[in-house]
Amino acid sequence: MSLIDHTHDPAAQSWVASANTPDTEFPIQNLPYGLFRRAGSNDSARVGVAIGDQILDLRLAAAAGKWSAADAVLLHHLAQGDLNAVMAKPAAQRRALRHALFAALQAGSKQETALATCLVPQAEAQMAVPCRIGDYTDFYTGIHHATTVGKLFRPDNPLLPNYKWVPIGYHGRVSSIGVSGTSVRRPLGQLKAPDAAVPVLAACKRLDYELELGLFVGPGNALGEPIPMAEAESHAFGVTLLNDWSARDVQAWEYQPLGPFLAKNFATTISPWIVTMDALEPFRCAFEHPAEDPQPLPYIDSEQNRREGGYDIELEVWLQTEAMRAAGQPAARLMRSNFKHAYWTLAQMLTHHASNGCNLQPGDLLGTGTQSGPNPEEGGSLLELSLGGKQALSLPNGETRTFLLDGDTVILRGYAVKDGARRIGFGDCAATITPAPML
Amino acid sequence: MSLIDHTHDPAAQSWVASANTPDTEFPIQNLPYGLFRRAGSNDSARVGVAIGDQILDLRLAAAAGKWSAADAVLLHHLAQGDLNAVMAKPAAQRRALRHALFAALQAGSKQETALATCLVPQAEAQMAVPCRIGDYTDFYTGIHHATTVGKLFRPDNPLLPNYKWVPIGYHGRVSSIGVSGTSVRRPLGQLKAPDAAVPVLAACKRLDYELELGLFVGPGNALGEPIPMAEAESHAFGVTLLNDWSARDVQAWEYQPLGPFLAKNFATTISPWIVTMDALEPFRCAFEHPAEDPQPLPYIDSEQNRREGGYDIELEVWLQTEAMRAAGQPAARLMRSNFKHAYWTLAQMLTHHASNGCNLQPGDLLGTGTQSGPNPEEGGSLLELSLGGKQALSLPNGETRTFLLDGDTVILRGYAVKDGARRIGFGDCAATITPAPML
Repeated sequence: MSLIDHTHDPAAQSWVASANTPDTEFPIQNLPYGLFRRAGSNDSARVGVAIGDQILDLRLAAAAGKWSAADAVLLHHLAQGDLNAVMAKPAAQRRALRHALFAALQAGSKQETALATCLVPQAEAQMAVPCRIGDYTDFYTGIHHATTVGKLFRPDNPLLPNYKWVPIGYHGRVSSIGVSGTSVRRPLGQLKAPDAAVPVLAACKRLDYELELGLFVGPGNALGEPIPMAEAESHAFGVTLLNDWSARDVQAWEYQPLGPFLAKNFATTISPWIVTMDALEPFRCAFEHPAEDPQPLPYIDSEQNRREGGYDIELEVWLQTEAMRAAGQPAARLMRSNFKHAYWTLAQMLTHHASNGCNLQPGDLLGTGTQSGPNPEEGGSLLELSLGGKQALSLPNGETRTFLLDGDTVILRGYAVKDGARRIGFGDCAATITPAPML
Repeated sequence: MSLIDHTHDPAAQSWVASANTPDTEFPIQNLPYGLFRRAGSNDSARVGVAIGDQILDLRLAAAAGKWSAADAVLLHHLAQGDLNAVMAKPAAQRRALRHALFAALQAGSKQETALATCLVPQAEAQMAVPCRIGDYTDFYTGIHHATTVGKLFRPDNPLLPNYKWVPIGYHGRVSSIGVSGTSVRRPLGQLKAPDAAVPVLAACKRLDYELELGLFVGPGNALGEPIPMAEAESHAFGVTLLNDWSARDVQAWEYQPLGPFLAKNFATTISPWIVTMDALEPFRCAFEHPAEDPQPLPYIDSEQNRREGGYDIELEVWLQTEAMRAAGQPAARLMRSNFKHAYWTLAQMLTHHASNGCNLQPGDLLGTGTQSGPNPEEGGSLLELSLGGKQALSLPNGETRTFLLDGDTVILRGYAVKDGARRIGFGDCAATITPAPML
């Protein structure tokens, strides 16, 4: 059953003029949710919907607009800043709210006059992490990343035997998840050079980003009750960009046998807007493992997943150094990739995660792992682009980088583009590195 | 500065008679916090203090008792069931509340008449996870466990080179943490026998427990700001028993390269009462790495930690099978160990965790890792006691076990005992295995 409907019509226009410009990331076909308050105000946080360069303030809109009784219930939660309550609702209720917001913002809507007073310029908003995140899991679905990095850590054994069977994942840290714009302090950590006799505590010298998507969970499952593949997508709420900051030197020394810990948990950055699964519907794509690879075990396989379980989402990493900023130079693009190269789908991540009865909850965040493309220049981290720090990247202004320096701003960008569909974007996921504490 | 005071006097008695029996785990010297409601009631959850076989209901006691203004503020939070608010307070405020509760419950207290109406028998209480846990981290401080298990997974390389330098830890799952009494469903998972060509999804065949302590964090630290060793203990709130249930067959296949995931996150069980650091004060012990081992790096070392950073806490695992229960036979003790064998202290866990700027928050839970003693019969898991499943344990009723069967109840118990101090206990951490979902 196709879920493409009138809200995906590329010809649809909004009465918010900036939503109709060709380069906006937030046309009326998108309608992502975010948590915000007016910068500098004492307002309580409330959920808004990005539309062009504006935000429809759902606290104001809940009161000023006309809504069905069912939509009003959901808007009441959003007005209080409680996105989790809406994430928990069945897909049909969430889709109904999308339709109501679309109708209200569409060109010619009778609600224009009332709702025009509910717009806040994005430039005047202070965004926050959009919901209460109960647990954060990071997967490892980027097979090109896993292979390239595996070669650096284990030259003889880059892709472990379980990779093509198990959607590998591990738990991450919730408390240090920050929204785009939050600076990231270079961590201290135990470092041990291969030729050093003993480790030392020092500032990380191999600080890196990782280009990921983050899937927010919608309705949860009860503890002990797996989620079958046929129901997996009904548990998905929406997607952000996610930067899984990584201290490579800390990681190399600490990660065995229980996985990354302090190498990762000092910071994770997400983009402020959650693009809903409904908005991404036109950008589905076929998903298949190469014929020579093992096919997924039945519990993470379905005909529907093979037909349309993938998503065609363009991903980019940009870098603006302190020198570029001082010289008024824009950020430089370091790479491009696409989520369609992932080895496991979002549905497989959800079903595998719950296959042992682990209970997912509304607002949980599942990172996809680094989304590198098949070619070397499509690496989703500096570790890959610099060949493990051995070959510096040249930047347009003459600077070079192997790993990040203080003052560097890393910006992740994402777009979904397809013939016959309106292009939608995710909004920047940006953060700047600040110096480590003094030792 | 010794923090031993009159509340640790072994001669102190309570007007609650059951708190004065020699075998109680909850004499007036203990005073642990838990979250509860009367079983079968619609009461809101509130915090209580265990005293003998009773609970002092702090919602009732806040109203019925006489308290200083400062204590009343803390009791107001506890009356609402919000232990996190009290966990966030400075150690001196938490200690003052302990002193007030001790005075109120002490034999001869003028508050006896008023507070006697605020007692709820523990047998009539339904306990809950005692606070909001933001993040759960599991450490690996049991060197005897790490060595024995390392031999099973990596015979040539049991203890990795980082073990004696890095307090190894990884992130766990918050949503599946349950309080003692919550049953644990046997998980399904991908299993691959060493001689099998491909994995299958099946019910875990090597289900195991792990004997741990759980440290609850008190006041947190700001993101980016490490916690120096000198301040570490002020960030500790109290300790529970913790069972880190483990699916060994799932773990063996999934854990590389990012660590345990579905092998662990289907369930973690904690005991209902948080024994405060103040209550544990008399049971401190010296902590030292063997002279031939590397000494801790300066950031996780201190004279005070060496002098008294350890805790002498007896730990036990008991098993009651379905057949024992049917025959009215009590649980059988499988092993004994002691937390003093841990290779890292609670203070080192806290300081290492925050050393990269990771922000700890009140209510965060840090598992210690499996606390096995130096001798083979002191293994803190069946994996150890059964030599990796190769040698079955004999139970008193003639049954044997390599790993857990459905219907088995695992009970962790813990006691702090010392000459000159009143013995205190943790309360049972128990859960029963229920069958896996049908495939």
